[in-house]
Amino acid sequence: MDENVLGIVAGVFTSFSMIPQLIKVIREKNVEDLSLVMILVLITGVSLWVWYGIIRNELPIIISNAFAVLVNLTLLVCYFLFRKKS
Amino acid sequence: MDENVLGIVAGVFTSFSMIPQLIKVIREKNVEDLSLVMILVLITGVSLWVWYGIIRNELPIIISNAFAVLVNLTLLVCYFLFRKKS
Repeated sequence: MDENVLGIVAGVFTSFSMIPQLIKVIREKNVEDLSLVMILVLITGVSLWVWYGIIRNELPIIISNAFAVLVNLTLLVCYFLFRKKS
Repeated sequence: MDENVLGIVAGVFTSFSMIPQLIKVIREKNVEDLSLVMILVLITGVSLWVWYGIIRNELPIIISNAFAVLVNLTLLVCYFLFRKKS
């Protein structure tokens, strides 16, 4: 299999797996399952993976981790928006 | 920064972020927060990333995703072990 196709398929699977958590938090406006420290660790980690992808010029790495940055930044915003209610 | 060092640091961050969920499930023997479909999607995704890493001969990709396979296989085992109790 072409390595870019493989990377994109892998990225679709790992990206897809993040959606339910995001939907659950937005729908229920409940962040008690979220850990602020872990969101920050994850944002740092996936941002470093984007950087790694840029240095190595690997589009599948860049795209899938940039998506993960977006999802986790949204979770971070939700954390502060919904924190008082939980 | 050397790209391998960058990849390893990125991998440590994203791997570290998976640990609390695993500890929580094992300690509480409660899998009601886990979705079987999502665990299977994630195992498929990270396994494909391992394959991608092998094809491209990138150790940081292989190691961090192999770790994610292990964590999610453990969650899968926990899911079936603790399912009846929840």
